[in-house]
Amino acid sequence: MSMKLTAILLLLQLSSYLGSGSCGKVLVWPMEYSHWINLKTILDVLVQKGHEVTVLRSSVSISLDVEKESAIKFETYPTSLCRDDWEYIFTDELRKLIYELPKESKWTYFSILQEIMWVDSSYMEITCKELVLNKELMSKLQEPSFDVLLADAFTPCGELIAELLHIPFVYTHRSFPGYTYEKYSGKLPFPPSYVPVALSELTDQMTFMERVKNMIYVLYFDFWFQAFNEKKWNQFYSEVLGRPTTLSEIMGKAEMWLIRTYWDLEFPRPSLPNFDFVGGLHCKPAKPLPKVIWRFDGKKPDTLGPNTQLYKWIPQNDLLGHPKTKVFVTHGGTNGIYEAIYHGVPMVGIPLFYDQADNIVHMKAKGAAIRLDFITMTRTDLLNALETVIDDPSYKENAMRLSRIHHDQPVKPLDRAVFWIEFVMRHGGAKHLRVAAHDLSWFQYHSLDVIGFLLACVATVIFIITKCCLFCYQKLAKTGKKKKRE
Amino acid sequence: MSMKLTAILLLLQLSSYLGSGSCGKVLVWPMEYSHWINLKTILDVLVQKGHEVTVLRSSVSISLDVEKESAIKFETYPTSLCRDDWEYIFTDELRKLIYELPKESKWTYFSILQEIMWVDSSYMEITCKELVLNKELMSKLQEPSFDVLLADAFTPCGELIAELLHIPFVYTHRSFPGYTYEKYSGKLPFPPSYVPVALSELTDQMTFMERVKNMIYVLYFDFWFQAFNEKKWNQFYSEVLGRPTTLSEIMGKAEMWLIRTYWDLEFPRPSLPNFDFVGGLHCKPAKPLPKVIWRFDGKKPDTLGPNTQLYKWIPQNDLLGHPKTKVFVTHGGTNGIYEAIYHGVPMVGIPLFYDQADNIVHMKAKGAAIRLDFITMTRTDLLNALETVIDDPSYKENAMRLSRIHHDQPVKPLDRAVFWIEFVMRHGGAKHLRVAAHDLSWFQYHSLDVIGFLLACVATVIFIITKCCLFCYQKLAKTGKKKKRE
Repeated sequence: MSMKLTAILLLLQLSSYLGSGSCGKVLVWPMEYSHWINLKTILDVLVQKGHEVTVLRSSVSISLDVEKESAIKFETYPTSLCRDDWEYIFTDELRKLIYELPKESKWTYFSILQEIMWVDSSYMEITCKELVLNKELMSKLQEPSFDVLLADAFTPCGELIAELLHIPFVYTHRSFPGYTYEKYSGKLPFPPSYVPVALSELTDQMTFMERVKNMIYVLYFDFWFQAFNEKKWNQFYSEVLGRPTTLSEIMGKAEMWLIRTYWDLEFPRPSLPNFDFVGGLHCKPAKPLPKVIWRFDGKKPDTLGPNTQLYKWIPQNDLLGHPKTKVFVTHGGTNGIYEAIYHGVPMVGIPLFYDQADNIVHMKAKGAAIRLDFITMTRTDLLNALETVIDDPSYKENAMRLSRIHHDQPVKPLDRAVFWIEFVMRHGGAKHLRVAAHDLSWFQYHSLDVIGFLLACVATVIFIITKCCLFCYQKLAKTGKKKKRE
Repeated sequence: MSMKLTAILLLLQLSSYLGSGSCGKVLVWPMEYSHWINLKTILDVLVQKGHEVTVLRSSVSISLDVEKESAIKFETYPTSLCRDDWEYIFTDELRKLIYELPKESKWTYFSILQEIMWVDSSYMEITCKELVLNKELMSKLQEPSFDVLLADAFTPCGELIAELLHIPFVYTHRSFPGYTYEKYSGKLPFPPSYVPVALSELTDQMTFMERVKNMIYVLYFDFWFQAFNEKKWNQFYSEVLGRPTTLSEIMGKAEMWLIRTYWDLEFPRPSLPNFDFVGGLHCKPAKPLPKVIWRFDGKKPDTLGPNTQLYKWIPQNDLLGHPKTKVFVTHGGTNGIYEAIYHGVPMVGIPLFYDQADNIVHMKAKGAAIRLDFITMTRTDLLNALETVIDDPSYKENAMRLSRIHHDQPVKPLDRAVFWIEFVMRHGGAKHLRVAAHDLSWFQYHSLDVIGFLLACVATVIFIITKCCLFCYQKLAKTGKKKKRE
């Protein structure tokens, strides 16, 4: 009887266990623009391998469109937000970030950036609320019994949907200001002595004052995260789930974090078993180019030479892979940087916003780029930078070194990303990679209770010994006096 | 002219750069017994791939023998030690570790273990000194221009040889008491709140008192390492290299650490980009067995049943892979544990010494083993343990779960180990995986200087504000008094 029961239980377990050849159902919580371009590369492979991929898209989505021949499905959910407003907010934020902020000090930059993210996150909260409280949609999502949810970690909600649908989830992520999500939700350690915090524009070789700066940035981002960002989402998530919870707790349930960098772009730092670094997964060999081309979306300038063609869209990857490409003038987005690394092309970086400055700082530190300032640079600056990168062979050599490192990995980044998503589908999770730090409070994690206890023990022992010594001394002194009197 | 020079430099660089198909020369600093069995698996593949492998072996080596058909070369170096003494020391130490120590308290156990390791390391120092000061041998080793040195990290010397020969080196390693080598040389972080220290016999789910215990163990091993072990080797290495250096500094130059575990056996914990976890690399599918067999090296007992055969050696891997194998009675060595995980066989563990107790504790925590005590166990204990593991299906299920995890990795452990050794050969190192923590002193690493500076700043500000307030208050008070008088 017990044997039979065991057999049935094993069969049930096996039926929910997907063999490596089986196909599953993937739900996706994406983000717009470049995040989507990167994520779509993974989804295309998943679809090719026979998995059913459903992408959640709000009715005001700007960039989540896919070619007609693709088998990726979309589930469009209604939202009370208006697309024009949404686009205006986005354009206005970009304008602020690119043209106004760089003139300000780092601290004003950070605080306005946080303000922008605060506004963004308010809109995200509205969208998220409208989605998870949409009973019809949520029951529709429960029907196909998804095996895994793949979420962009930058904008919350994906993990909440996974929690409500009771399915495991995997993150795709670049970085969050101050690495706060990674630290509080992922339990990833970031020693401030040699890990420059995201947005700091520092390298891993820091002077004393740079290390002081890095520490202050860490404290600033930690404070901002705990005082504002987390509080807001904690309340919302607790309301939706009907029990007190935190954003970090729900995000902390991620089975895997697929980070969109690698040690060619990033400085090496500690990791955890459920973090994999899959930077450059969207890169591929270049296809041949027909002629010289130039991307430009505005009015054709009168001064344009006859040998320059204007196009609304250009195949950037194919251009970077062309043997005659000498240098890449880039705003420093992670996708573009990786295409340059992939093809071994040195860069002139003109960062605009968010992680772009960090990316260019990293490439500069590794000797593969020169950095220019978008607001202050002159024609001569750009010309000099281009000439230096083209004429000084060290830039090309360093770009080629990074390219060799990038190509020489045991498994390609895209294959690793797909492997871990399928792993979670096959095993229903990846709990064996999850550190026990998730079960500890912050003071337990930092061993503050243990240190306090040990210090208290030492203090008690010292106190007792001192008391004993004093007691003995007084006894002896008394006996001495008595003896003297005698 | 400058273009020509660049071309020549590039050619020189390319000529020293091994293509992925090229063959190279590997020097090996091994350790005896089970370490050697594991390492030999890697060497066999390297030889198969056409690399020239030379193993350094002392003239008193006990287990470093290889089959005649193998292409692995040995370079035997003379030592003043006598093989009989060497064997006696080893047997005597084993006897102490197995029969005497378990009766003692954990603290006595640790201190006697450290004593034994102290004696061992003295012998190792003699051997190492005789090797590196052997001018004839060292110049012979310089001739074939090795591309990489593969060293067992447990016994120092390998890194010194690599330093003297100016070649990059890769470690193969299980763990060192208290993880001191990994921490001080490898800069690997070990948060004591959820990472049980090596030899602690704790799990990653610790009660408050267990976390206190773990912290005390950490402090104990740190103290022992810094006060004794490191000091001795620092002096020796400084003498040989003719400049002040430390064991940690030279060991810290390792390009890669190939750790002989994975998250099936270990509890997940932080890692660094130049650490790879290749546990179970020696495992392979089982070959068919001819009949039931039993390994026994002594006098045949009279009570032995006719269905039990005695053999001096048995194919353990093939036995564990036999479909009828129900349970593995093991002393808990890492190699054996991995063979059981590989084939999904639950265990009855009777740990004898070193990491064996930890291994069994891990397997017990993961529900795949029962632990027995070698000194106190009775016939009934063993029988009960065997019956429980065979009859309770959870043990088999958990062993199978670990087996599935073990087999479901993006790249097999052995292939990863070989990949990283060849990577170091191809690129002359793996510096892009090396954290900048190596360039910091211990107080910089822990940001103590930065924290001190910031506290001093805060104290100064508070002091100035208090002084200002006091000054203003006194001014106001004086004015008040004056006014009152008026």
